[in-house]
Amino acid sequence: MTQSSGKIRMGMVGGGQGAFIGDVHRLAARLDGDIELVCGAFSRDPENCRITGEALGVAPARSYTDFNEMMRTEAALPANERMEFVAIVTPNHVHFPVAKAALEAGFSVLSDKPATLNLEEALELRKIVQANNGLAYGLTHTYLGYPLVGEARGIIESGGIGKVRKVFVEYIQGWLATEVENKQADWRTDPARSGGSGCMGDIGTHAHNLAEFMTGKRMTHVAADLSIFVEGRRLDDDGSALFKMEDGVKGTLSASQVCVGVENGLSIRVYGETGGLEWHQEEPNTLKRTYSDRPTELIRAAQGYLSEGAQGWFRTPPGHPEGYIEAFANCYREFGKALRSQGGVASGIDAAVRGMAFIEALLESSENDSAWTEIKQ
Amino acid sequence: MTQSSGKIRMGMVGGGQGAFIGDVHRLAARLDGDIELVCGAFSRDPENCRITGEALGVAPARSYTDFNEMMRTEAALPANERMEFVAIVTPNHVHFPVAKAALEAGFSVLSDKPATLNLEEALELRKIVQANNGLAYGLTHTYLGYPLVGEARGIIESGGIGKVRKVFVEYIQGWLATEVENKQADWRTDPARSGGSGCMGDIGTHAHNLAEFMTGKRMTHVAADLSIFVEGRRLDDDGSALFKMEDGVKGTLSASQVCVGVENGLSIRVYGETGGLEWHQEEPNTLKRTYSDRPTELIRAAQGYLSEGAQGWFRTPPGHPEGYIEAFANCYREFGKALRSQGGVASGIDAAVRGMAFIEALLESSENDSAWTEIKQ
Amino acid sequence: MTQSSGKIRMGMVGGGQGAFIGDVHRLAARLDGDIELVCGAFSRDPENCRITGEALGVAPARSYTDFNEMMRTEAALPANERMEFVAIVTPNHVHFPVAKAALEAGFSVLSDKPATLNLEEALELRKIVQANNGLAYGLTHTYLGYPLVGEARGIIESGGIGKVRKVFVEYIQGWLATEVENKQADWRTDPARSGGSGCMGDIGTHAHNLAEFMTGKRMTHVAADLSIFVEGRRLDDDGSALFKMEDGVKGTLSASQVCVGVENGLSIRVYGETGGLEWHQEEPNTLKRTYSDRPTELIRAAQGYLSEGAQGWFRTPPGHPEGYIEAFANCYREFGKALRSQGGVASGIDAAVRGMAFIEALLESSENDSAWTEIKQ
Amino acid sequence: MTQSSGKIRMGMVGGGQGAFIGDVHRLAARLDGDIELVCGAFSRDPENCRITGEALGVAPARSYTDFNEMMRTEAALPANERMEFVAIVTPNHVHFPVAKAALEAGFSVLSDKPATLNLEEALELRKIVQANNGLAYGLTHTYLGYPLVGEARGIIESGGIGKVRKVFVEYIQGWLATEVENKQADWRTDPARSGGSGCMGDIGTHAHNLAEFMTGKRMTHVAADLSIFVEGRRLDDDGSALFKMEDGVKGTLSASQVCVGVENGLSIRVYGETGGLEWHQEEPNTLKRTYSDRPTELIRAAQGYLSEGAQGWFRTPPGHPEGYIEAFANCYREFGKALRSQGGVASGIDAAVRGMAFIEALLESSENDSAWTEIKQ
Repeated sequence: MTQSSGKIRMGMVGGGQGAFIGDVHRLAARLDGDIELVCGAFSRDPENCRITGEALGVAPARSYTDFNEMMRTEAALPANERMEFVAIVTPNHVHFPVAKAALEAGFSVLSDKPATLNLEEALELRKIVQANNGLAYGLTHTYLGYPLVGEARGIIESGGIGKVRKVFVEYIQGWLATEVENKQADWRTDPARSGGSGCMGDIGTHAHNLAEFMTGKRMTHVAADLSIFVEGRRLDDDGSALFKMEDGVKGTLSASQVCVGVENGLSIRVYGETGGLEWHQEEPNTLKRTYSDRPTELIRAAQGYLSEGAQGWFRTPPGHPEGYIEAFANCYREFGKALRSQGGVASGIDAAVRGMAFIEALLESSENDSAWTEIKQ
Repeated sequence: MTQSSGKIRMGMVGGGQGAFIGDVHRLAARLDGDIELVCGAFSRDPENCRITGEALGVAPARSYTDFNEMMRTEAALPANERMEFVAIVTPNHVHFPVAKAALEAGFSVLSDKPATLNLEEALELRKIVQANNGLAYGLTHTYLGYPLVGEARGIIESGGIGKVRKVFVEYIQGWLATEVENKQADWRTDPARSGGSGCMGDIGTHAHNLAEFMTGKRMTHVAADLSIFVEGRRLDDDGSALFKMEDGVKGTLSASQVCVGVENGLSIRVYGETGGLEWHQEEPNTLKRTYSDRPTELIRAAQGYLSEGAQGWFRTPPGHPEGYIEAFANCYREFGKALRSQGGVASGIDAAVRGMAFIEALLESSENDSAWTEIKQ
Repeated sequence: MTQSSGKIRMGMVGGGQGAFIGDVHRLAARLDGDIELVCGAFSRDPENCRITGEALGVAPARSYTDFNEMMRTEAALPANERMEFVAIVTPNHVHFPVAKAALEAGFSVLSDKPATLNLEEALELRKIVQANNGLAYGLTHTYLGYPLVGEARGIIESGGIGKVRKVFVEYIQGWLATEVENKQADWRTDPARSGGSGCMGDIGTHAHNLAEFMTGKRMTHVAADLSIFVEGRRLDDDGSALFKMEDGVKGTLSASQVCVGVENGLSIRVYGETGGLEWHQEEPNTLKRTYSDRPTELIRAAQGYLSEGAQGWFRTPPGHPEGYIEAFANCYREFGKALRSQGGVASGIDAAVRGMAFIEALLESSENDSAWTEIKQ
Repeated sequence: MTQSSGKIRMGMVGGGQGAFIGDVHRLAARLDGDIELVCGAFSRDPENCRITGEALGVAPARSYTDFNEMMRTEAALPANERMEFVAIVTPNHVHFPVAKAALEAGFSVLSDKPATLNLEEALELRKIVQANNGLAYGLTHTYLGYPLVGEARGIIESGGIGKVRKVFVEYIQGWLATEVENKQADWRTDPARSGGSGCMGDIGTHAHNLAEFMTGKRMTHVAADLSIFVEGRRLDDDGSALFKMEDGVKGTLSASQVCVGVENGLSIRVYGETGGLEWHQEEPNTLKRTYSDRPTELIRAAQGYLSEGAQGWFRTPPGHPEGYIEAFANCYREFGKALRSQGGVASGIDAAVRGMAFIEALLESSENDSAWTEIKQ
């Protein structure tokens, strides 16, 4: 799919000046030196688009103000020049149309999450992906890029904690504890751009995705209570849910953006019949493993005792902390391998659909007095 | 109520050889040197009772095998000799009959929790307490004896974190993750001796009590899902609930005894409009305080910057860790002051009733598909 | 040595109102209910002595204002009434005369550390102890009373970390970072009452004692640099030393009372050929154990996997933090057993002599431009 | 010095296949997208050099097997094509000859540390740098690239902890606790390639550099004891030193590579008259600040309350951990700014000379029975 000798050629939609996540995507894509940004529709504002492209070393002719134009123009380029995939880093409501346009124009897609604005779109997107099965579709659920998350999954998969019973997962932050007006906050609290859920759509989905990935179980039912604590806000800024997973697993999931002073508190604890695992995103290089009859262990990043699978996910030796950008770069690296048909992605169209189904179930349950509600995909 | 010159005279029901909590009560009662154990109905087994009494320096004549006999005999002693209060340290199902007998015989009561086997008994007990208003009734919700718990309550009460919005409280352990057969486990998993709930009655009530005490708010509704994970067990060994408190506070509460490798994980986080507080029982000498625009603070035990109220609750300077026994001793000390009419207790008959009402609401909700259920007291 | 039926009878010298450590000794002695305070020379001020004795329930006739009088009077009492040992809780310069008087009057001694004001006195005390070999002599090196300190010693002794190579030990505090005038600070900074060293004598000795106890090796040489940071102070308030132990072990030892904001920071790390151990007094219920090829383990208090020897040192189950008072009570408990000839004490007259020899070597080295100086005992 | 429109053009000496630090340099140089690797003398082995260059996208003609040839050839290229600076990532003994050759050929230099094999070479290098003052010389003391290290320096500089009194700095690891034979270990333990010191030269210099940078004080004297614990090793694998700095500051410095199970334990604590600071490289996003009369604060990466200077050093919001690679990239970014004459570097030729003088003083002291020895530069 790519030329054997060269870097993978990436295009980007979104990520103009003033955006946050676009920069992070570029840091991540750049880190390992295997991906090259060749074009972009960074902004609908021509000036912003031009300046951004220039700063990024993109040829002026390939800085587009319209993503459809980008698809058309790039598709017409020679195979060894045109972009190979599109990174979508826009606000949520634009994820779907761009992904659709890209896939239909023959380009693989690596999209920021959530994949779409609602479940209906996600189901449609799945059809499009399935209809273009030579193309890759990935979702940057960044936190799956942390190597110890994968290590935890492996431990559970191989029976290391016995049959899973209980999961505690949460993703809490404090930055929206008061009315905030800035570019980041504005679209996240606007139903038209963010979808039916605010906090849960923005970060609760990460918690859901992490719980399913680490346990290897699908969440089947939720009983949820979403809240708006900041007066005047139109979307949930907090919520908690009881949940059930396959095979009798139970748990709780909380997401909040009003926990004052909490930075980026994604954490998960999983307990099985014979052991437990605990991981915190803010200290991602330690995985705590508990036993019934032995001391708790601190499993550490990059150590030789990690599983073979984990070894390739680190760039530096133990004690040299790797963080968010490296995790994000791992997502890009994994997507790059998928492009070259060397594997799948941890988070693809199925995760995309499941994430939207999770949000819809949460909203339905919360509106229905927290009644148990099935996640239908 | 007590002689001005002497120690407070305590009797004890329960706490014979092989019991756990009786020893802890005695350590706590003894620590400050203000309380003297003068009699006990330690066990219905005469030999156990005799040996226990002897080991504790109790006069043989005052080691009773029947608590009713203890009440009668002690009541007949001269006022400056007879016990002044009874510490109840039996399995749950005996708490109520002993408390009733003691109060009706004119003795104050300091009871292990839960106060009774069910709400009905608790309501009856409340009547008895109210009818004997010269007597003190206290419940050893040990964790309220940790000074930084009181400090947190004070910070919240004085507006230090703004209007409270969200509470996360949990109490998880791992010791019942498999079938356990020993004295401690047996009665806790037996409905006849433990009441309608296992894990929630045993430790979930502590979480409920802590949440209400720290926030100063009453929990009003729960949506709960209780579980039995260990096959053959007859009472819940795990459970989680969404809850609502007065004034729009929301939260989650979890209790579990199947979280393998977790020791005694009671913890609470409270977030208000302008700040947050976090406390963990296993590291009780640190209280974490978060702000929106300033570094997180580690408030530490025994420091001069603590509130005036907290100062008297420590026995050693900062950096000399005080723990569970000291917290328990604080409960005894506070009860001693109440006996001498110098104050109330943090946890008395109202907390007792509310604890039972909480359990009943949990059970009702869980049986009713986790429907929101009112806590009716 | 004691009556089979009763508690051990303790006398106390020092510990009048306003003192700190006397209270701690009494809390510790009282906790397990096996020791009874029967007499005391709490203060040379008759009023203070009387009030203290009364508050402690000591018979007025046995509250003495002169410790020599106490020795004479108690020695004349019947064997089953008189005190069995003296707890010495005075400022440092009085430790030796009281210990001498007590031993010569036939009483065992449990002394606060340091044992004496200087090495010369310690050597004389050793002769007295040796001449009275029916009597017990103990030093309350409190920190040896923490069960995980003993567990660490056991691990090292049994080869658990291989041949020991390197030790880092320190005891730092911040409370004397400025000129302080209060009862606690005054005598600690007065050469006449504290001895030739301030900070090192007060807390550095604990670090020395802990290092020797945990490794089972004697410290043989020091190269030290003591400092006075607060203007006008007459004794060291800070110091660091390189040291050598038997069998090629090397290390560093620091003690300071000017580390602003540090509470009671005693900590030790020991590394051997195959593993390491790390312990912090402020979080005493965790012992960190490191390996070359396996995850770091968190060894926790009261767990079933601890060595048999450790099991009896806890009063509550895992996760119920025990702290400084319990550690201190363990010292009393161990001393009580020694009195009843069931064992020795972790810290006796040899530790006393070695502590003083350590201080003298530090002072000599520091005055001699940090030259390597032998610890001669 | 660079073209206004393009990336900074970097050459590299060292970093062929099998090397470690070369990769890290390239990750760091690449992260922000401002630097381009245009040529390299990656290995003296032609095959290794060719493969490495190809994998990195370097034009075959610019993959040199000899660094002198690289200097000559590059110097002959047009100004807007030839490399602008050389990154030196070889074993220690080659640092100096390459730096000398580069500077004399007109190229700026960013060298791995230590700058040279000994002080004599460092002094010569300083002359060369001074003689070429249009060129930049930088040393990758990576740990200065952590933003909170700079924040700490700023706090101290502005009097935030008062006059500095005491510093504890250490850098300990465990990976050389046994005889190790691999590419990384081999040259580090070979005097010919590593210089007169092993552990101290490799990591002790980082500790020295960090202490001087954070406090803004020069270390003036050391009393050191270096050790070889692993039999047969020819250079120190462990050592500790007492030290003195300007203005009466005292401290201890330890470095070790035999602390089994420790990963990359660089940490520093600085105490002044009114406060303290504590930082650990393995948890680099938290800086602990202590006070005498207020709670300890946890200063966190990327927070808005940090100094203005710190704000530009982060790439992601609070709670998104940045680590070693980002710190390294900050060193490259700062060097890039220096190249463009927008500022100096935290660690340049003076730090290079001081680092070597520190090592020489350590060696002299250790050979001289730990006598106090002046650091003469």
